[in-house]
Amino acid sequence: MKIARFSTGDELRYGIVDGLPTDEAAPSGESAGRLLVLKGDPLYTVPEATGEVVPLNEARLVSPVIPRSKVVGIGKNYAAHAAEMGGEAPADPIVFLKPNTAVIGPDMPIVLPDWSREVHYEAELAVVIKTVVKDASPRDAAAAVLGYTVANDVSARDCQRQDSTWTRAKAFDTSCPLGPWIEIPEPAGERSAFDPADAVVRARVDGRVVQEGNTADMIHSVPELIAYVSRIFTLLPGDVVLTGTPAGVGEIHAGQRVEVEVEGIGSFGNPVVRR
Amino acid sequence: MKIARFSTGDELRYGIVDGLPTDEAAPSGESAGRLLVLKGDPLYTVPEATGEVVPLNEARLVSPVIPRSKVVGIGKNYAAHAAEMGGEAPADPIVFLKPNTAVIGPDMPIVLPDWSREVHYEAELAVVIKTVVKDASPRDAAAAVLGYTVANDVSARDCQRQDSTWTRAKAFDTSCPLGPWIEIPEPAGERSAFDPADAVVRARVDGRVVQEGNTADMIHSVPELIAYVSRIFTLLPGDVVLTGTPAGVGEIHAGQRVEVEVEGIGSFGNPVVRR
Repeated sequence: MKIARFSTGDELRYGIVDGLPTDEAAPSGESAGRLLVLKGDPLYTVPEATGEVVPLNEARLVSPVIPRSKVVGIGKNYAAHAAEMGGEAPADPIVFLKPNTAVIGPDMPIVLPDWSREVHYEAELAVVIKTVVKDASPRDAAAAVLGYTVANDVSARDCQRQDSTWTRAKAFDTSCPLGPWIEIPEPAGERSAFDPADAVVRARVDGRVVQEGNTADMIHSVPELIAYVSRIFTLLPGDVVLTGTPAGVGEIHAGQRVEVEVEGIGSFGNPVVRR
Repeated sequence: MKIARFSTGDELRYGIVDGLPTDEAAPSGESAGRLLVLKGDPLYTVPEATGEVVPLNEARLVSPVIPRSKVVGIGKNYAAHAAEMGGEAPADPIVFLKPNTAVIGPDMPIVLPDWSREVHYEAELAVVIKTVVKDASPRDAAAAVLGYTVANDVSARDCQRQDSTWTRAKAFDTSCPLGPWIEIPEPAGERSAFDPADAVVRARVDGRVVQEGNTADMIHSVPELIAYVSRIFTLLPGDVVLTGTPAGVGEIHAGQRVEVEVEGIGSFGNPVVRR
């Protein structure tokens, strides 16, 4: 089940994405998809339909979640990406933070900061947390997942190399596009269309594929990452854990449009601007 | 004016600290001070007294603020501390993040993480933000300050040296004690008792002074820090900016009690535990 957060005017609402053709990863102006409008916030309530239906092409999708606490990022979780960054992957995950002020939704501009000359896209699988997680085993961590979304871990690579911390490089405003919706796996026992351990991750710049990998090549699996992170800090409902980017990162420039995709979830894009 | 956040039972309320003897930095069980209970949250409303008065020694103080978004930390903002860390202070501030899950109040335990063997105290002046701040000048940054509180920037120094990022070292649960209250400067023109540019910062372990410095020795002033940080990310009301620690950092161990103080604001302590 896919749950989107959207607006048709001022109010933000949630809806189940229905009737999307299986070959349609991104909502387009031509989409035959619909949103079955929900009561309340699916993070805190069991999804219940209001009966209202909104055509997908009349809705403006926004970030499917704004964390109350944090977005946790993971560095070098694919060996081929660690190699292209000039080193081996470390034994333990590299952890960093993006604040909720970094999060934007589909189609909102990525604003290149004036203090960086080298900003990169990084397409990633993102995990949305549904329950409080602290010092969890991988099994308990897996049970705390609400679902999966797609992230662009936008990174000021020059600052990442030069600064003592990754904060300026990774946490600036608009550095965390999330979308287009949350894929919530089917209950155990049923066959789910989406497997977070075997999904193609892709980025496109101006329509051209520039990055492609598969989550099967992650060094640390999703449950391992969440368990590890939960030994550092308590994860709260709505917190997001990024899972690292595959090889193929590269620069984005003002005037371009960058799209990120995880097959089985969907894709979305953002224009890149410099102000 | 000092505003505390406190509980006398379950409910958290705000109160103006009144009648505190000038030589009393920390609320004690013997305190003659009182809390003039306020309506609502002083971050979002002009303080208005309810008429209720609570003796300070009957109230349990909690963190004066829990940020909706982030605590921003600053590294090496005192030359003598940069030297004791084995280097010179960088030209630009070093910026890092602590999530709101790191924040605790007075008397709550600092829990040493099981993955660190070297955890340090760092007494610091902390700034509480009252309005949205983005790309601000130092003058505009100064106008966005609600007030000042005291922080202990608890740091896992071994991880800070070894890890690629400072996140594990600086952002773990209980790594950001804040208290005992917020000192809100008097309106311009009146003589304020507190000057953030000339205040003694101090830490004690089990009653012994282990760290003492003066904010006059900061490399970057409070308005400069906020202006710099606001070029990275938008600061929201209730966000907290730490200002760096003076020389004299050192280890804390389970069983000890660590107190941090900024003269003119107050002091508070936390027991240190290992679980």
